[in-house]
Amino acid sequence: MLTPGDADADAPHLWRLVERRPVYEGRFVQLYQDVLSGPAAPEFYEHVRVADSVRVLALDDQDRIVLVEDQFYLPGQRMLTLPGGGVAPEEEPLVAAHRELAEETGCRAADWMPLGVIHPLPTATPARTHLFLARDLTAGETDREASEGWMTVRRAPASEAVALVRSGAITEAGTVAAVLLLAQLLAEEHGGA
Amino acid sequence: MLTPGDADADAPHLWRLVERRPVYEGRFVQLYQDVLSGPAAPEFYEHVRVADSVRVLALDDQDRIVLVEDQFYLPGQRMLTLPGGGVAPEEEPLVAAHRELAEETGCRAADWMPLGVIHPLPTATPARTHLFLARDLTAGETDREASEGWMTVRRAPASEAVALVRSGAITEAGTVAAVLLLAQLLAEEHGGA
Repeated sequence: MLTPGDADADAPHLWRLVERRPVYEGRFVQLYQDVLSGPAAPEFYEHVRVADSVRVLALDDQDRIVLVEDQFYLPGQRMLTLPGGGVAPEEEPLVAAHRELAEETGCRAADWMPLGVIHPLPTATPARTHLFLARDLTAGETDREASEGWMTVRRAPASEAVALVRSGAITEAGTVAAVLLLAQLLAEEHGGA
Repeated sequence: MLTPGDADADAPHLWRLVERRPVYEGRFVQLYQDVLSGPAAPEFYEHVRVADSVRVLALDDQDRIVLVEDQFYLPGQRMLTLPGGGVAPEEEPLVAAHRELAEETGCRAADWMPLGVIHPLPTATPARTHLFLARDLTAGETDREASEGWMTVRRAPASEAVALVRSGAITEAGTVAAVLLLAQLLAEEHGGA
């Protein structure tokens, strides 16, 4: 049987860092070459640092999920995601979650629960996405950044959000994970598992 | 009601690319600064190119999921994931999926179905992770890369894999998404929805 502990049972740190070469230090992205020693180590390991991020699954009093829709430059399309954004240096992810939910949707939540943490792209970056469930919402004013001026808010029942994931209308990893984790929680509640 | 089509209904391409400045062209990572024009455009947009990847959810004849466990350098831990890896330039994701499943687990599958495509980190890279369901497995020899010499294979029923996601023992985004999407498929089959 698999248990979380097993994953670390025989975890050698195969590679040791000999030298970290900074290649690019930008505002949002840093790139490094790590020179490594150890068995089958590559000549160097290229990797990227970006801020950790948060995604907030906010459920309103009708059990609808609050989604935002915005233009994403890199995929070149509008995307439907949970509200969220970057975690500032030294900031607690929960603090970032409060801020991003309020700025993007105007909602404040009184009831917060962690839903999990994922590694979006662990071969390229150690960045994590922190997922939260937020309930007991109060509506308020949004405070979006200029680049978020075309963001819109929509609400969808959980079953519909799951259908949007399954149809490919929702593809952002943190949103996909949080919506499907909520579905597991709800199935457990309703199924009495 | 939300439908996939709605997401594109008012999709302006807010920003236009004026100039793409290559900053770093490595073996696995490329980094660019895109100079943009348009409303509220940043001075430039830093972004990263890495290969698309695949994750394969292979189900054996006892409905167990084939998982691999390997050391991940950047998070500094052994991680439990679905077999998978990078898609080569011009390669079809399904071809990469066949190859990665065979190399890492020795399994060949006769029955393949797409499970979806996710954007792991769409603010930093347009890379996608392609998810597949593979069934009707035949065991064979692995053909791992030297750096995968410490990889081990484990099998877990779907319910256990879901529990591993929920407990935080599985955190890689493509694995999380595929395992939870399979749970949705199984719930539908069993619930007759």
